[in-house]
Amino acid sequence: MSTYDRALTVFSPDGHLFQVEYALEAVKKGACAIAAVSDDAVIIGVEKKSAAKLQDKRTVQKIYQIDDNISVAFAGLTADARVLIRKARTECQSYRLTFDEAPSISYVTRHIAGIQQKYTQSGGVRPFGISVLITGFDESGRPRVFKTDPSGTYSEWKAVVTGRNGHDVQEYLEKHYGEGENTSTDAVKTTVFNAIREMVESAEKNIEIAVVRPGKAFEFITDEELKQLNDEKNE
Amino acid sequence: MSTYDRALTVFSPDGHLFQVEYALEAVKKGACAIAAVSDDAVIIGVEKKSAAKLQDKRTVQKIYQIDDNISVAFAGLTADARVLIRKARTECQSYRLTFDEAPSISYVTRHIAGIQQKYTQSGGVRPFGISVLITGFDESGRPRVFKTDPSGTYSEWKAVVTGRNGHDVQEYLEKHYGEGENTSTDAVKTTVFNAIREMVESAEKNIEIAVVRPGKAFEFITDEELKQLNDEKNE
Amino acid sequence: MSTYDRALTVFSPDGHLFQVEYALEAVKKGACAIAAVSDDAVIIGVEKKSAAKLQDKRTVQKIYQIDDNISVAFAGLTADARVLIRKARTECQSYRLTFDEAPSISYVTRHIAGIQQKYTQSGGVRPFGISVLITGFDESGRPRVFKTDPSGTYSEWKAVVTGRNGHDVQEYLEKHYGEGENTSTDAVKTTVFNAIREMVESAEKNIEIAVVRPGKAFEFITDEELKQLNDEKNE
Amino acid sequence: MSTYDRALTVFSPDGHLFQVEYALEAVKKGACAIAAVSDDAVIIGVEKKSAAKLQDKRTVQKIYQIDDNISVAFAGLTADARVLIRKARTECQSYRLTFDEAPSISYVTRHIAGIQQKYTQSGGVRPFGISVLITGFDESGRPRVFKTDPSGTYSEWKAVVTGRNGHDVQEYLEKHYGEGENTSTDAVKTTVFNAIREMVESAEKNIEIAVVRPGKAFEFITDEELKQLNDEKNE
Amino acid sequence: MSTYDRALTVFSPDGHLFQVEYALEAVKKGACAIAAVSDDAVIIGVEKKSAAKLQDKRTVQKIYQIDDNISVAFAGLTADARVLIRKARTECQSYRLTFDEAPSISYVTRHIAGIQQKYTQSGGVRPFGISVLITGFDESGRPRVFKTDPSGTYSEWKAVVTGRNGHDVQEYLEKHYGEGENTSTDAVKTTVFNAIREMVESAEKNIEIAVVRPGKAFEFITDEELKQLNDEKNE
Amino acid sequence: MSTYDRALTVFSPDGHLFQVEYALEAVKKGACAIAAVSDDAVIIGVEKKSAAKLQDKRTVQKIYQIDDNISVAFAGLTADARVLIRKARTECQSYRLTFDEAPSISYVTRHIAGIQQKYTQSGGVRPFGISVLITGFDESGRPRVFKTDPSGTYSEWKAVVTGRNGHDVQEYLEKHYGEGENTSTDAVKTTVFNAIREMVESAEKNIEIAVVRPGKAFEFITDEELKQLNDEKNE
Amino acid sequence: MSTYDRALTVFSPDGHLFQVEYALEAVKKGACAIAAVSDDAVIIGVEKKSAAKLQDKRTVQKIYQIDDNISVAFAGLTADARVLIRKARTECQSYRLTFDEAPSISYVTRHIAGIQQKYTQSGGVRPFGISVLITGFDESGRPRVFKTDPSGTYSEWKAVVTGRNGHDVQEYLEKHYGEGENTSTDAVKTTVFNAIREMVESAEKNIEIAVVRPGKAFEFITDEELKQLNDEKNE
Repeated sequence: MSTYDRALTVFSPDGHLFQVEYALEAVKKGACAIAAVSDDAVIIGVEKKSAAKLQDKRTVQKIYQIDDNISVAFAGLTADARVLIRKARTECQSYRLTFDEAPSISYVTRHIAGIQQKYTQSGGVRPFGISVLITGFDESGRPRVFKTDPSGTYSEWKAVVTGRNGHDVQEYLEKHYGEGENTSTDAVKTTVFNAIREMVESAEKNIEIAVVRPGKAFEFITDEELKQLNDEKNE
Repeated sequence: MSTYDRALTVFSPDGHLFQVEYALEAVKKGACAIAAVSDDAVIIGVEKKSAAKLQDKRTVQKIYQIDDNISVAFAGLTADARVLIRKARTECQSYRLTFDEAPSISYVTRHIAGIQQKYTQSGGVRPFGISVLITGFDESGRPRVFKTDPSGTYSEWKAVVTGRNGHDVQEYLEKHYGEGENTSTDAVKTTVFNAIREMVESAEKNIEIAVVRPGKAFEFITDEELKQLNDEKNE
Repeated sequence: MSTYDRALTVFSPDGHLFQVEYALEAVKKGACAIAAVSDDAVIIGVEKKSAAKLQDKRTVQKIYQIDDNISVAFAGLTADARVLIRKARTECQSYRLTFDEAPSISYVTRHIAGIQQKYTQSGGVRPFGISVLITGFDESGRPRVFKTDPSGTYSEWKAVVTGRNGHDVQEYLEKHYGEGENTSTDAVKTTVFNAIREMVESAEKNIEIAVVRPGKAFEFITDEELKQLNDEKNE
Repeated sequence: MSTYDRALTVFSPDGHLFQVEYALEAVKKGACAIAAVSDDAVIIGVEKKSAAKLQDKRTVQKIYQIDDNISVAFAGLTADARVLIRKARTECQSYRLTFDEAPSISYVTRHIAGIQQKYTQSGGVRPFGISVLITGFDESGRPRVFKTDPSGTYSEWKAVVTGRNGHDVQEYLEKHYGEGENTSTDAVKTTVFNAIREMVESAEKNIEIAVVRPGKAFEFITDEELKQLNDEKNE
Repeated sequence: MSTYDRALTVFSPDGHLFQVEYALEAVKKGACAIAAVSDDAVIIGVEKKSAAKLQDKRTVQKIYQIDDNISVAFAGLTADARVLIRKARTECQSYRLTFDEAPSISYVTRHIAGIQQKYTQSGGVRPFGISVLITGFDESGRPRVFKTDPSGTYSEWKAVVTGRNGHDVQEYLEKHYGEGENTSTDAVKTTVFNAIREMVESAEKNIEIAVVRPGKAFEFITDEELKQLNDEKNE
Repeated sequence: MSTYDRALTVFSPDGHLFQVEYALEAVKKGACAIAAVSDDAVIIGVEKKSAAKLQDKRTVQKIYQIDDNISVAFAGLTADARVLIRKARTECQSYRLTFDEAPSISYVTRHIAGIQQKYTQSGGVRPFGISVLITGFDESGRPRVFKTDPSGTYSEWKAVVTGRNGHDVQEYLEKHYGEGENTSTDAVKTTVFNAIREMVESAEKNIEIAVVRPGKAFEFITDEELKQLNDEKNE
Repeated sequence: MSTYDRALTVFSPDGHLFQVEYALEAVKKGACAIAAVSDDAVIIGVEKKSAAKLQDKRTVQKIYQIDDNISVAFAGLTADARVLIRKARTECQSYRLTFDEAPSISYVTRHIAGIQQKYTQSGGVRPFGISVLITGFDESGRPRVFKTDPSGTYSEWKAVVTGRNGHDVQEYLEKHYGEGENTSTDAVKTTVFNAIREMVESAEKNIEIAVVRPGKAFEFITDEELKQLNDEKNE
């Protein structure tokens, strides 16, 4: 057991990077997060561990704003996520100071993924135990969603999940996202809700959904709306 | 046995960070600490190991002031706690010098949790063997309580415990905190006292409770008051 | 298993560098990439994992431009590739600033291979888990193709493959490249398509082919053209 | 056996820091040292290994002055103690230069304990194999005694022991210190003598007792006084 | 197997440096290289792995020019060789800048061997997996040949081989080099050809021979000449 | 066996520093050295391994001058001793340059012991395998003798031994040093001779004795004197 | 076996430094070297491995000049020796620049031995696998010979051997050096020849003898002289 405690990240004989794969296990154990684009917004849905009775729900937060038009959700180790998010925020500020304009979402994605890769190739550190969903808008206002994993790989998605039960949820998204060519914000919101609803106990306690529009504050959907979505689902 | 002696903090195959979990064991062995908010104050209660007969009770102290309106309690390794507390104090002073105002409690919490995370991801150091309860007031004077753990995760609470028997005490808090919608300072003080009373031998020797109000000195409750609370409990 | 996690790259008793060979295994597991020269262009063909249904195909990209006349494809770990590509791009810009002219393709190849070698001989890092196909044009406009491997070795080719099923695909190329002395761009494009077609499920979903000409943008062939090449092949 | 030779200080699965505990074993094997406060002085008593016949008793010294009003005794590895004492002395001089006043005893204690903690959390060093008794006077002239251990923990005491047979000696102190409300210097001196007398062969050869008063030189008690105390004890 | 992956180069109980010996194994597996002096030239012969059908023969190059009158061939890891060759070239340029004259061949040899030795005695690196044949001319124009091995040892030769089947080839050279007191360039060229011919499949595909004369460009012998040498040999 | 080859100096479970104890074994295997004070001189006696027949006796030297009035002898690894002696000499010169006076013998002792301690607590080095006898005179001209061991501990002695058979020799010294209250230089010289004579084969070949007086050169006793002492002993 | 590959040089439980002893094994496997003083010269004799037939005898050299009047021979790893020799030469030049005079032979010996010791006590390097014979003349022109070993120990000799069969050869030297009080250069030369002759196959091929006189070039003895010495021996 103890041997896992002394490693750098190197190749196994069949070409695997064990530390990266182990970090992925940490991701797979994390509460799941979904991000999807609609016609004019990004919808982020996260599974919340029922906050303990006396816990403040806001600090169990899993959706963070990085820059004016860029937000992230994640699955995996919360403490690792906070560190990476802080690094990303600093980079955004630095970018603005240097270039006098906002960094693009693809720039931010490359930056986050690059940090994650670096922690898989250098001695004396371990990989980040998180997968990050990076959401935002490009210059034309088009909503976009990217996903990174502990290896530092990233790709763009219309709708994507990470974390616990990721495989099943992604299948659900593939089946229902854009059904009937409908990718209106309401339709996508419902899909995201339904995808995450399958695996949690209580819609109101365990689901948080935010709608993000360019240049606007997060719109966290209300408990009533969650109840309503829940009722619709059960119909 | 000796193999635990040479580790860096890395992932095990199933995604665990052993050193962080072992550090958590050190926390679970520590004397317990409780923090809770009332309507206008923070109540901190700590289990004191009976000071040895000739020991000065003040240096077995487990409640520390970090900044004018920010105090902490902790469970785990005392020497580690002192180092982390010193770092936090230095940061507060530095913040005041730079920005000419007091750091907010959430800033201080992020800073402490960030240091704890860093010690789980870099080579050549081990995690801090402590969990910290950070208490204080926001600008509007609202009392707040945060808790960090060795991984660097943190969250906000109305009432929270860390350390020995943490599971049972938290259950007690969940059941009794705010009973009858009463979160007056007196009511919360009683709850904190009762929660910690269950597992210690002597109310007067093993319990220390402080009431913190914005801009005021700690109010350590007196032995008479402890006795009275004890009597009430036994009624 | 865990013992692979703590290594530097050193010799085994029979003169092998295990970490380099393990990295090569990572390459052999990667989706394959082909590059070939025609009379006046470079043709790059890559196997695409079927993008997941909701995944944006562009970020599963495996062909990157490094400098005006230099592009690369790769097999192996995508995150590693991106890092190495970023390093190569930076070197090209730096070269231009210093010498006021574009770096030659052989200069860029030596630079990339040199970085890869360095990561096999120094402590505290692991080799890059990628093989890179570097394509471009020399000063006279002649198309050229180089291939590096994780050891940092490189060589020049008329047509070469790396990644999954590399052995079989290279045999196919050797048999059909330049058949009938025909190395027109169309002929080579067909050969590259056919070579990669053997091992993928769907021509349209799993094959990407780009034609690169000096001083011009990539010409990614269209789905229709892919369909047509597919039909021709099946004739 | 050899495995103990390559360690950094990290957690064991049940939350222990082995290197710290092993260092504590070195302390427990060391000749014991006692420090106690009386009404107006500090009494330090140490067990001396019988100096070898030809050995100069003064260099087997276990009581050191750190600053004008601060002295220490220790149990554990003498060579480690000397290094730590030198560091403490340097800090005191540096403090005086910077602030133009003497450092307080609690400042010096925090400094010594801080160094000890640091050697338990950083790579490439081992903990100090000593426990230190720090004695002195605060600004009002009140005598004070602190004790640190290899973990860097410290606390204040009225009377405390460290080293060989520490458990039994502390019990003796608890029973007899301040008997009859008498904490005169003479009474405490007798208690310290008696506590240490139990476990050594010869009062004159194996006990050294110093009385420290604010702003005065050490008063090492004479052989006659030791003999007298011995006789009184045996009465 | 994995244990070879974490080593520094140190002595075994019977005085061996394993990493150096393992590196020598890498040399012995490499395609062989021969260098010999004639009356007025250096002849370098190398075994070429049959270039793959579509591979450019020039990049499978094993003969490199280091400075105006100094060239090298090698056996072992090509990527390592390129790095060492680059270092040697840089040193030559630096020498010219500093001393305003060309470095002597013995200076260059000492420099290359010194680098190789250094990589056998310092931590954090492995030895170079190559043996280098350094050829050139001294100030009087006399042709000279040196050979280094991974330990950093070097010596001068009239005719020497390194790499695959080195033992047999050296025996052949010893028997035939300078037969009949004839060390004309033609005679030595024939001897080098014949020595290498024994172990390769095809004279034209697998043998490369260069004749180097002071102050002149390499003279690679033509395919016709190879064919002719082959025919002569078979007579 | 090999496991001893990779250690830093850390604690064993029962509080031992193995590397220090192993270094002490190296001391115990070394030829013995004795130092003793007389009324007005220091007498140093060392066991010499019979120099090989053709060996120059002077380089098997075991008595070194460090500063005008300070000399040392040692037992253990000669090469280690020379390094430590050089460091001590450099410190003495540096001290003289800085303070314009000679360093005291206790300063030099603390310095040597401090270096030895440091090599037991830092990573990447091993302890010095020597015990040093430091001899000299204080400002009043009083002869003094100190002894350090590999842990960095030191103490002052009237007469002390280190190295092979140290236990028996020390017992001899304790029995005979200062017999009849006679600590004249002649008496002490005889005692030192006799102590060392017990365990060597030949007085003349294996014993070297030096008498050191303040401000004077070493007086190595002559072979005749050795013979005479030998005869007296055998009487 | 592999465990020897990862060591630093530390003590074994019985006080041995294994890496130093293993390095000594490398010395004992090396071709032997003898140095001896005569009345007015130094005679150096070395066993030469029969140079391979085509090898230049001069680069298998084992006798090196370090400074005008200082030369060395060695046994052990040739590449290590060259590095150490280069360091010694650099030190001599530096000494001359700083002090404007030649370094003494004892200074050079201390410097070489000091480097060798340092490589036995620091992390990240291994000891030098050589024993060095340092020969020269002191200011009065007296010939002198020193010998170092891998531990960094050195001593002075009239005649001394290192390397293969060292034990037997030293016995021979002890028996015959200075026979009949004759230490003329001719007599010593004959003794050195005879000592080395016993263990080599061919006097002319395997023995090299140099006579060094102050301020003069090496006098390598000729093949005729070797033959003559051989004949005399066989008489």
